[in-house]
Amino acid sequence: MQVTKIGIVGLGTVGTGVARILTEKAERIARQAGRMLQLKHVVVSDPSKVREIQLPADMVSADLTRITADREISIAALLVGGLEPARTMALQLLASGKDLVTANKALLAEHGTELFDRARDLGRSIAFEAAVAGGIPIITNISQCLSANQITSLRGILNGTSNFIISQMEEGGMSFGEALAEAQRLGYAEADPTMDIDGSDAAQKLAILAHLAFGARVHWTDIPRTGIDNLDPADLKYAADLGYRIKLVAVAQLHEGNLQLSVSPTLIKLGRPLAEVRQAYNAVSVVGDAVGKLFFHGLGAGRMPTASAVVADLVDTAVGRAQITFHALELWSQRQSRVQLCDPNSLTHRYYLRFAVADHPGVLAELCGVLGRHQISIASVIQHEPDGQRNGQVPLVMMTHQATEGATQTAIREIDRLPIVRQGSVRMRVLGS
Amino acid sequence: MQVTKIGIVGLGTVGTGVARILTEKAERIARQAGRMLQLKHVVVSDPSKVREIQLPADMVSADLTRITADREISIAALLVGGLEPARTMALQLLASGKDLVTANKALLAEHGTELFDRARDLGRSIAFEAAVAGGIPIITNISQCLSANQITSLRGILNGTSNFIISQMEEGGMSFGEALAEAQRLGYAEADPTMDIDGSDAAQKLAILAHLAFGARVHWTDIPRTGIDNLDPADLKYAADLGYRIKLVAVAQLHEGNLQLSVSPTLIKLGRPLAEVRQAYNAVSVVGDAVGKLFFHGLGAGRMPTASAVVADLVDTAVGRAQITFHALELWSQRQSRVQLCDPNSLTHRYYLRFAVADHPGVLAELCGVLGRHQISIASVIQHEPDGQRNGQVPLVMMTHQATEGATQTAIREIDRLPIVRQGSVRMRVLGS
Repeated sequence: MQVTKIGIVGLGTVGTGVARILTEKAERIARQAGRMLQLKHVVVSDPSKVREIQLPADMVSADLTRITADREISIAALLVGGLEPARTMALQLLASGKDLVTANKALLAEHGTELFDRARDLGRSIAFEAAVAGGIPIITNISQCLSANQITSLRGILNGTSNFIISQMEEGGMSFGEALAEAQRLGYAEADPTMDIDGSDAAQKLAILAHLAFGARVHWTDIPRTGIDNLDPADLKYAADLGYRIKLVAVAQLHEGNLQLSVSPTLIKLGRPLAEVRQAYNAVSVVGDAVGKLFFHGLGAGRMPTASAVVADLVDTAVGRAQITFHALELWSQRQSRVQLCDPNSLTHRYYLRFAVADHPGVLAELCGVLGRHQISIASVIQHEPDGQRNGQVPLVMMTHQATEGATQTAIREIDRLPIVRQGSVRMRVLGS
Repeated sequence: MQVTKIGIVGLGTVGTGVARILTEKAERIARQAGRMLQLKHVVVSDPSKVREIQLPADMVSADLTRITADREISIAALLVGGLEPARTMALQLLASGKDLVTANKALLAEHGTELFDRARDLGRSIAFEAAVAGGIPIITNISQCLSANQITSLRGILNGTSNFIISQMEEGGMSFGEALAEAQRLGYAEADPTMDIDGSDAAQKLAILAHLAFGARVHWTDIPRTGIDNLDPADLKYAADLGYRIKLVAVAQLHEGNLQLSVSPTLIKLGRPLAEVRQAYNAVSVVGDAVGKLFFHGLGAGRMPTASAVVADLVDTAVGRAQITFHALELWSQRQSRVQLCDPNSLTHRYYLRFAVADHPGVLAELCGVLGRHQISIASVIQHEPDGQRNGQVPLVMMTHQATEGATQTAIREIDRLPIVRQGSVRMRVLGS
């Protein structure tokens, strides 16, 4: 039986999972691949550190040339996070003739064009199933299984940390800070969780999916994004009263040939599949013009689910499937973007609005007046009892009919300047009828 | 740009969809494949028949040699149903050097070993994504994306016709006969729907999935199966009262290294993803030892969803991915089965039981006595009011704790012989706690 030798760079959470599968499940992998995949060397920054996995001492070093200079090793799994030294190591591995597998979404979102062009020039491939949605094989499904389709819509819960925090706030009654601390205690959130909770991580993943599904050449920082860092437990409760659940939703959707991209806390009607995604799970709903609606649900992070995706890429690369896909798709090429982004202000959505107003007569009329002048029509209003803990403010919750993003933004800015308004208003999109 | 020429055999529902995508979406397919896929010839039984798709007259014939003898055509999509002449045509196409794509699950379930061995001998490949679950790419996900995993459990709603009928009975209040007629009117059910409603179709698909996921060499007729043809609307209602929905569920599950396979109407707790699969949708829930639980949901039948899967296979074959997968996996080889089937009688499940008994004192005690002697412990009992429409029978619904299949079968047989029992008892498995 043929043998493909593998190098791993990075022995953190994911790297340890990959090393474990390669060493402990070698026979199973060989059965799936029709060849042996053999781990030959692992490069780490500190070889003396005690690890959760026991590897032969000479298999682990801090020396990247133990992989780059070893002509027996044909595939390298780059499993370190961040941009540098990941980028430099990726270029060195490609230059030394290795095909690359990586789980580093930030690296691809930032330096995808450079890395993919270099790989193409060198006749090498890059596989990155693990970069988006962890254990859900969404990259292969979009780039291979749905090749007959024009994808028209893609909606995802792509950040498990945010989803876990929201679930804890909703089901466990925690504050945002308590839920974040719990996520960190369980290892779902990084020591610095900024990129998770401000929507950046989801935007990086969305940029990758939009590239695959729509040929969009967009930098993730150009995607309008709102995180969950200002999410108020009161809105989770009011949304539930209305029959909705709030999720951090990443959207890529065609509107008359132009692409809408956004990441934001969004109300989803209970019973819709995305509304039922709990804890650290991820999910992606894809609509294709031939296949109709497909829904994928699974663990979006964690050692073994992510390792499952990395090892699938290693197998695909060892047998040659990954190279075929890589060269057929011309990903991250300099080719012109196939779609332009929509003007987000022109798009219409339904909105959830919450105002904290003074308990005076005429307040509702004043708010409705502003909304009406901006062509925002109200579908329902719930005026709650004055909130004793908040200085007698009256929470006023509204659901709108379809209104443009631009008009609602302008109206909210205008409303927030009214003397009757006691704190910044809340505005979130609504999915589902 | 390179061109791969395609032949299609059969221009029914699926064949028409495939021809439409290949001819109308050629540019999009070329972008996904990195090469052109060109439909060159279509073989049908009656070329004079008026079709929904207009093709050049010389592109359509009743002569298979127009494909087999054409050396330009490298891939044939075999899109006719049934066993013959499909089997003979498949062998002829392989012998003439064509790689094969098919949606015919009955053909694979019945003649898979012969066809796959022949393809291997001839250095050809067979791709069959469309044979199971229509638009859900479950074949690729199991055989490629989950290659790092030992799959431990697979549960699927694989027959859209049955699911549609159950949905109509539950939501539309129809009888089984009315729902079946509606399914036929909408084109979901065949003129002869026997294979759909008696569980055979789901068993054929399960045999294919069990082969891929577990290396099981099992003929579909060896899978214990119960259809929905005797499903009583009363049980849908009683199940709903208890917080469950009834679905036709196909199960493949490892128990201490042995495989349980079954197809049967099953109670699933509301809120569980499989319970929420409505109308003609299919779904598959897969558990892998690395990836955890993955859930797939999509359209399981219909022209364009199935064509989406066939065209993905055509692209995979044109670019060479399908051949790699086919040769790596040694599917349907003569190799020994990697797993043995469980003795179904030894497996334990929770059960839903419904008895139609006479309205006499002591009836409940008598039933409970029989169940107790067979070690079947009762979790809950609902005795309904006597049913005026059914001669004063009393419907008695029970949920058991875990009990063996064998013991419940024996107990039900014994109970059905009691004079107090007025009609055959109903027994269904329960999933979820």
